[in-house]
Amino acid sequence: MIKVGIVGGTGYTGVELLRLLSQHPHVELVAITSRKESGMPVADMFPSLRGRVDLAFTEPAVATLARCDVVFFATPHGVAMAQAPELLAAGVRLIDLAADFRLKDTAEFERWYKLPHACPDVLAEAVYGLPEVNRAAIREARVIGLPGCYPTSVQLGFLPVLEASAVAAAGGDLVDAASLVADCKSGASGAGRKADVGTLLAEAGDNFRAYSVSGHRHQPEIRQGLEAVAGKPVSLLFTPHLVPMIRGIFSTLYARVTPRGRDFDFQGLYERRYADEPFVDVLPPGSAPETRSVRASNFVRIAVHRPAGSDWLMVLVVEDNLVKGASGQGVQVMNLMFGLPEDTGLTQVPVLP
Amino acid sequence: MIKVGIVGGTGYTGVELLRLLSQHPHVELVAITSRKESGMPVADMFPSLRGRVDLAFTEPAVATLARCDVVFFATPHGVAMAQAPELLAAGVRLIDLAADFRLKDTAEFERWYKLPHACPDVLAEAVYGLPEVNRAAIREARVIGLPGCYPTSVQLGFLPVLEASAVAAAGGDLVDAASLVADCKSGASGAGRKADVGTLLAEAGDNFRAYSVSGHRHQPEIRQGLEAVAGKPVSLLFTPHLVPMIRGIFSTLYARVTPRGRDFDFQGLYERRYADEPFVDVLPPGSAPETRSVRASNFVRIAVHRPAGSDWLMVLVVEDNLVKGASGQGVQVMNLMFGLPEDTGLTQVPVLP
Amino acid sequence: MIKVGIVGGTGYTGVELLRLLSQHPHVELVAITSRKESGMPVADMFPSLRGRVDLAFTEPAVATLARCDVVFFATPHGVAMAQAPELLAAGVRLIDLAADFRLKDTAEFERWYKLPHACPDVLAEAVYGLPEVNRAAIREARVIGLPGCYPTSVQLGFLPVLEASAVAAAGGDLVDAASLVADCKSGASGAGRKADVGTLLAEAGDNFRAYSVSGHRHQPEIRQGLEAVAGKPVSLLFTPHLVPMIRGIFSTLYARVTPRGRDFDFQGLYERRYADEPFVDVLPPGSAPETRSVRASNFVRIAVHRPAGSDWLMVLVVEDNLVKGASGQGVQVMNLMFGLPEDTGLTQVPVLP
Amino acid sequence: MIKVGIVGGTGYTGVELLRLLSQHPHVELVAITSRKESGMPVADMFPSLRGRVDLAFTEPAVATLARCDVVFFATPHGVAMAQAPELLAAGVRLIDLAADFRLKDTAEFERWYKLPHACPDVLAEAVYGLPEVNRAAIREARVIGLPGCYPTSVQLGFLPVLEASAVAAAGGDLVDAASLVADCKSGASGAGRKADVGTLLAEAGDNFRAYSVSGHRHQPEIRQGLEAVAGKPVSLLFTPHLVPMIRGIFSTLYARVTPRGRDFDFQGLYERRYADEPFVDVLPPGSAPETRSVRASNFVRIAVHRPAGSDWLMVLVVEDNLVKGASGQGVQVMNLMFGLPEDTGLTQVPVLP
Repeated sequence: MIKVGIVGGTGYTGVELLRLLSQHPHVELVAITSRKESGMPVADMFPSLRGRVDLAFTEPAVATLARCDVVFFATPHGVAMAQAPELLAAGVRLIDLAADFRLKDTAEFERWYKLPHACPDVLAEAVYGLPEVNRAAIREARVIGLPGCYPTSVQLGFLPVLEASAVAAAGGDLVDAASLVADCKSGASGAGRKADVGTLLAEAGDNFRAYSVSGHRHQPEIRQGLEAVAGKPVSLLFTPHLVPMIRGIFSTLYARVTPRGRDFDFQGLYERRYADEPFVDVLPPGSAPETRSVRASNFVRIAVHRPAGSDWLMVLVVEDNLVKGASGQGVQVMNLMFGLPEDTGLTQVPVLP
Repeated sequence: MIKVGIVGGTGYTGVELLRLLSQHPHVELVAITSRKESGMPVADMFPSLRGRVDLAFTEPAVATLARCDVVFFATPHGVAMAQAPELLAAGVRLIDLAADFRLKDTAEFERWYKLPHACPDVLAEAVYGLPEVNRAAIREARVIGLPGCYPTSVQLGFLPVLEASAVAAAGGDLVDAASLVADCKSGASGAGRKADVGTLLAEAGDNFRAYSVSGHRHQPEIRQGLEAVAGKPVSLLFTPHLVPMIRGIFSTLYARVTPRGRDFDFQGLYERRYADEPFVDVLPPGSAPETRSVRASNFVRIAVHRPAGSDWLMVLVVEDNLVKGASGQGVQVMNLMFGLPEDTGLTQVPVLP
Repeated sequence: MIKVGIVGGTGYTGVELLRLLSQHPHVELVAITSRKESGMPVADMFPSLRGRVDLAFTEPAVATLARCDVVFFATPHGVAMAQAPELLAAGVRLIDLAADFRLKDTAEFERWYKLPHACPDVLAEAVYGLPEVNRAAIREARVIGLPGCYPTSVQLGFLPVLEASAVAAAGGDLVDAASLVADCKSGASGAGRKADVGTLLAEAGDNFRAYSVSGHRHQPEIRQGLEAVAGKPVSLLFTPHLVPMIRGIFSTLYARVTPRGRDFDFQGLYERRYADEPFVDVLPPGSAPETRSVRASNFVRIAVHRPAGSDWLMVLVVEDNLVKGASGQGVQVMNLMFGLPEDTGLTQVPVLP
Repeated sequence: MIKVGIVGGTGYTGVELLRLLSQHPHVELVAITSRKESGMPVADMFPSLRGRVDLAFTEPAVATLARCDVVFFATPHGVAMAQAPELLAAGVRLIDLAADFRLKDTAEFERWYKLPHACPDVLAEAVYGLPEVNRAAIREARVIGLPGCYPTSVQLGFLPVLEASAVAAAGGDLVDAASLVADCKSGASGAGRKADVGTLLAEAGDNFRAYSVSGHRHQPEIRQGLEAVAGKPVSLLFTPHLVPMIRGIFSTLYARVTPRGRDFDFQGLYERRYADEPFVDVLPPGSAPETRSVRASNFVRIAVHRPAGSDWLMVLVVEDNLVKGASGQGVQVMNLMFGLPEDTGLTQVPVLP
């Protein structure tokens, strides 16, 4: 059994980790910490876990966490990097669901998160936890920076075509990497379980809006990932919107097809690229995915379109922001790190309706 | 023109007052106060008011408010009673949307609101602002305690049958006043526009729950009103529930019919009682009302049922909690106080769908 | 492996059966029928099942179904009783999710469902599939009439107190069985997956309404069940309401406590009654359950209240109408019929948020 | 008083016309037709209109409609063109909310609507009812083809920049008219009030999806309008999505800025273009509009963005699809046709929350 600790179990990614890990056949939950709720049984806060999780929240003491094989940080940005060196020294492996180990450029991190980075050396060894790109490195990693919810969907949507452009560089790009647009829509759980007027039901319900239109923290993260596979600079316009629903991200991606790409079989490219991926499902031609088709599951579904009479490639991606966009991806990564089949504990069928 | 001030314009009842008063032909908005947002144009916070309300929030200074003919308090409990004596002395009339002037028994007030009452003498003269019961007194009032959202719907639903019981006392009651049940359901705007985890879309959306099951502040207010018309003690079980919608209250009311009431024409009773009321609509027999049928309007709609084979009277009441349950009723009361036709500025047709 | 067939797989109870059975370790899905969609792969209609259910819909031929050990009918009322005799003759066991085998009184059935009963003899042997009441009989049954969604929640909520009244008859009842009220609220999936104006998002969204106020088919079913345990006539007022959410039923139950019941420990009664039930969770005193605490799971959670100063017993019950209210209960019953642990394939943790 | 008839009053645009026209000071509602509901009082179908609309639905007889000054067609495509010649001959003016008089190219109409056009001569004289473009022609028109909901928002969003490009043609375009993208999101009322599985609350609620990805009828309509002002071919990729809300369209528009446009003051351009428009509100720089800011009102609000480090112009547009996107625009057009101030009966403040 893998001994697992969770730091910060009171938010949505925390309770989602608990939902998934409590059903995982090879996990022993050792500790769930919350400074604020210390002493409260987890199932008192989340009655959905009654009879399934018997732990109470505890103070986030290193001594407790040091007994774990792996610790998830489901905390605000900045917490994981403060505790990482000590836990690593104790032989614990770390999976951070926040942003501390995502951006390789500390200046970029500090610009967007308004914090100096506490441990650049740990950052240097940290692996970006997107299995579809970094599977081998994840297996060996001591520290994982888990991708953000939007970045997972946008990267998986653009990856195949940028990789193919890189490989086929001799022949020229398939799409214009200087004109990528990601028009993304997220459910309200993406804002986290925190008191806030903007995501009240009476504010966000029966309403649709854009936000962070002058810049969102996930933009540099996505760009970093896309440039890594493209092997060159990428320009991306990223527009997040808030949907009156609980879970789910829908990313509508646009890329201008180059003359070389005009007759290219993008559908085939995507199907081949993801043929062996356990959690990426390329839909048949002509499909229009919907977020509920992956609700409460670790799947991403992708539809590839070449709208008639246009030179656009349009890629539609759906994921559950709390599963493949956060906690489910964390469990997938943990499975890789501990040599388990990658889908262990992640085979739940999406909940529809 | 009636010079109107609003204290506390940043909540839902505040913005709803602004919506209604900005369309009122005889109102001049003089001041809208918010200590926290002082200086901010109202339309910056509520873009729905762009081009319609040009005021900015100001500090809640007595000097400003003293220039008004009437001041609405759309504030937390306790604010109106602190400022009432000074404003009354300046000749301003007051309409409090909070609870400061609802409960006539200060001990009861202090028990439920955890505040000593600041001005029992003002409370003594205050009129409970339910026009269907207190129309004459409202016309002359200097201070109005406006009913709560639930109390408006429950009182209007039980009123006719309790009044009739009181009148017909010689013959005996029509229903057992010791067994009233009000099973009420409210949209999330009833919780106010304040940062709170419990009414986040991701918590309250796609979910239904009861709350305050061990006692809710509106219970003594409803009981006070029902006992006033019944002329004797009334026992009421009041259960509030939270509905994943923005506006609207639906009250399902149950009363046990007495043997005397068994063949009574309750439908006719309700129709006669409300025949001249501009905002109470008794539906035809067999109707099942829906909250959207009064959305964004000052109407209450009531359906009266005598379920076959039972000795229950069931009354279904719908209202918009922010209009007839708060701000619209405030405007209705203001119209009465200033000698205007009661429905002035309140003739909007409900928004459906 | 249990060979399973599903007749009528295109509705919500059908797709929910597929979700649950495709994760069941001892089930082999043999056939899913739909006259209308014959030939279409199931996963084309429900992309949530891509990669998990490889079957296509087929014509509902007896030859195919006769190869099954058990057949679920997720069909409109009247279909199961038409096919039951032939399938029973072929040695197939039947679980009907519709109403054909619920009401023991064929006259009552015909009154509410406007159909003559096609096989009263099969009805006579059919077992009402509520494990908490009929566990032993279910194990041996050839034909199950699965309870309706509302009836499951209302019966589980009233059962303990009516049973205790029956047992303690010498001492007198604990509650007045002539005054039961069930004020019930259901999500829109309860109306089924069928084209209908009334449950469009633009009609039922951001709206709350009562329906079937002059009588609902589930009333006689509930009454039949309650009278069976009470051992005497029961009077029940049942009021269904439509909540703008997808899944979930919330039942607020009221019963007048008799003088004998006034100091009775109802909380203890409920806890003891359900102590060994795998899917009924009695919450701690003072709890207010919410439907999402059981979302997508087979649990029912119950809170027991004795409101201060009243003589009411109030019981709050939450269930997922598609799981414990339909398909999950069907799987639970199947497990009993085939000697499996009762919770096999039903251990999913509720999805929250 | 303008005598008004409505053909097809049972859909969402019909009931919205009734809401607006029943509050219009210069309108007399003469007839509302519905073949299917003939004889039913309108307020029985839409209780929101009780006490405000006393008419019953009638058969759509020409004799009745011929007594009107103007007739609105809130009908499926194809109805208006069948009745237009006869009504025009009787001196009635027509406003069609469907598509019969939108597309000037009958071949295009037939391709998208699968109907031959019944009266090309009427189509030839019909005016496209977008006041911000065609105000003068609308005043004189006998027949109006009212814009679709999406086309209104997309055209108003792109208009200023395409007009400016056309004017400034000597200097070159401001944006690349060959690369326009409209990523649009609509509430479910856009699908109409008709029995349909896809827009059930249990299907469309808590869900987000794209639809008509291989081509939508509004694309040629938008293109026709944009090309008219651009004075040259325009290429537009239009992607509609379904949002789990009732009313509202949010259009996120992207256009590639040309080198000439790089330092252009787009904000100023939009502000000047719409300075005198009563229903188009250009928001301050940096704004992120939300659909509820125009809910139940005839306003469109527009935010103009030039995302840092990119060469994109991004325009965000919100409207209420049933008001400015349909019925409200119809009333605005009627006001123009009959010489009334353009905002008569359309001054309702948006409903927020």
